[in-house]
Amino acid sequence: MNPNDTWAVGVDLGGTKVEVARVDSAGRLHQRLRRPTNVKEGPKAVEREIVNLANELQKLAGSPPIGVGIGLAGQIDPREGVVIFAPNLHWHNVPFQSDLKQALKLPIVITNDVRAVAWGEWLHGAGKGCDDLVCLFVGTGIGGGVVSGGRMLTGCSNTAGELGHITIDINGPPCTCGQRGCLEALAGGWAIEKVAQEAVALDPPAGALLTKLAGGTPDGITAKTVAEGARKGDLLSLRLFERTTQALIAGCVSIVNAFNPCRLILGGGVIEGLPELVEQIDQGVRRRALSAATKSLQVLPAKLGNNAGVVGAATLALQTFKNEDHPEV
Amino acid sequence: MNPNDTWAVGVDLGGTKVEVARVDSAGRLHQRLRRPTNVKEGPKAVEREIVNLANELQKLAGSPPIGVGIGLAGQIDPREGVVIFAPNLHWHNVPFQSDLKQALKLPIVITNDVRAVAWGEWLHGAGKGCDDLVCLFVGTGIGGGVVSGGRMLTGCSNTAGELGHITIDINGPPCTCGQRGCLEALAGGWAIEKVAQEAVALDPPAGALLTKLAGGTPDGITAKTVAEGARKGDLLSLRLFERTTQALIAGCVSIVNAFNPCRLILGGGVIEGLPELVEQIDQGVRRRALSAATKSLQVLPAKLGNNAGVVGAATLALQTFKNEDHPEV
Repeated sequence: MNPNDTWAVGVDLGGTKVEVARVDSAGRLHQRLRRPTNVKEGPKAVEREIVNLANELQKLAGSPPIGVGIGLAGQIDPREGVVIFAPNLHWHNVPFQSDLKQALKLPIVITNDVRAVAWGEWLHGAGKGCDDLVCLFVGTGIGGGVVSGGRMLTGCSNTAGELGHITIDINGPPCTCGQRGCLEALAGGWAIEKVAQEAVALDPPAGALLTKLAGGTPDGITAKTVAEGARKGDLLSLRLFERTTQALIAGCVSIVNAFNPCRLILGGGVIEGLPELVEQIDQGVRRRALSAATKSLQVLPAKLGNNAGVVGAATLALQTFKNEDHPEV
Repeated sequence: MNPNDTWAVGVDLGGTKVEVARVDSAGRLHQRLRRPTNVKEGPKAVEREIVNLANELQKLAGSPPIGVGIGLAGQIDPREGVVIFAPNLHWHNVPFQSDLKQALKLPIVITNDVRAVAWGEWLHGAGKGCDDLVCLFVGTGIGGGVVSGGRMLTGCSNTAGELGHITIDINGPPCTCGQRGCLEALAGGWAIEKVAQEAVALDPPAGALLTKLAGGTPDGITAKTVAEGARKGDLLSLRLFERTTQALIAGCVSIVNAFNPCRLILGGGVIEGLPELVEQIDQGVRRRALSAATKSLQVLPAKLGNNAGVVGAATLALQTFKNEDHPEV
């Protein structure tokens, strides 16, 4: 990379590891560094780690970044970059943006991890060149990011896109959010795991393969185990995934009818575990959503995979700070 | 009104009547004219009627309008203003915008009737001064309009906001759209009517009051009858409305979690028939949606009532054409 090229630091801050990468304005990842997250010692320790890693990247690049973008699982007040609540980090009301800005002397922007990933997919992944899209990430939980008319929706208190918590079964199972029948409560990784373990407990012979794949203990069965079972043709796994598929189709029908995206981009561990879900959801949505809403719709798998978090966070920083010639630091 | 004041013609074009009004840039309605819609004789007859009414308004105003906004129930291609399909008018692929532009020599903009109403509520009704809101209109069918970040969402093929067709009960009753368990299939006027008639047929004594209110024939029971019964404390009516309320709460939880509006504005015949629904939905949504998403939420009744259609359509015209000094006509 030419040292004059614009680049940003992308930070993917999770409860177990912090990843920091140098990403240029074309979305190319140049270096990536990774450390365990020092959750125990609190925000200051995490701040020091990020400062060290960012300085290391800056040395490698030979030029300063335009700024730093951070994605983390939690609720962020975007005006001041305060982390209101981040369950994995045990943070409450941490003014991380201003703290890090003082320490690094660089402009900082913080966002929700799922929204960071959506930024990456939009500008450099499966959403490239598209002004109306929805990214739905189906992992342990389910989250989303929505671009409409060329803008990432944020909403009134910065929580727009909580697509895991749309109700799809008013009489359905309870969700971690306290509501019943959320999309996440039927199709999130934790829900698949829970239903699989219950099914195996009820009928151990039917769950023999799943138990074996989980190392011999039904308690070890996860959504990943069920995906593996389904790939091997295991009947119980296929039945469990059918339920997941129907829930995802119903959720995606709601999303397509409500937002009318040009592209529906599907990512996350559950989708990666069983990539044929993309095709099944595509067909189901075309059959069931309003035909006027699916006329120009493409259903696509997410593209950035493991890089999505850091590329997305850096992309947001590049977008946020690109027009600031002399950013206030 | 000062003849120099900017105004627009707002047209609410329905299957039974066409309403045309003079509306100024403050959203004030000055005159309103109404004629039956001549559906039988096709688009040209409707066009002539609108031309006559618009000319009449222009004479009364003493100055030409900035343009004409039209709201109609149907699917519109916004680029050319082609009415792709309007079931109440029996229109298919009618280039109504260009036809009317030639006839009136004025700039014309056409939109879906629900979106027109949302424009009116946003700029001159319960949404005034707000950049993030959802209007949900619960009438015979259910539709919506979404403003996010100060822009009305249109989506990829101009169908964004079809909130009647979000799935809230994956195992629910069939909807007119072909899908099951849509919000509209549980809480739309047609669904309330259907369930009420079925309930009365199953248990005529329980339905005695409803039958009486409907003029003695169970077939005459509508959503309005059920609202009237509920206001009188009729047990069956209250039970039917409880189902509607729960469905509306589940739908509004989805909407609030997905869009994170500052205001959720509720209108349409079903809401007007039982205005306490607004309070019940407010409480239900606060209890069940993500607390971060309801932090700044207000749930409000729509304000413009019968004027919403014409005011909204005129408002869209005023917004669309206000910066065009010499609009191409």
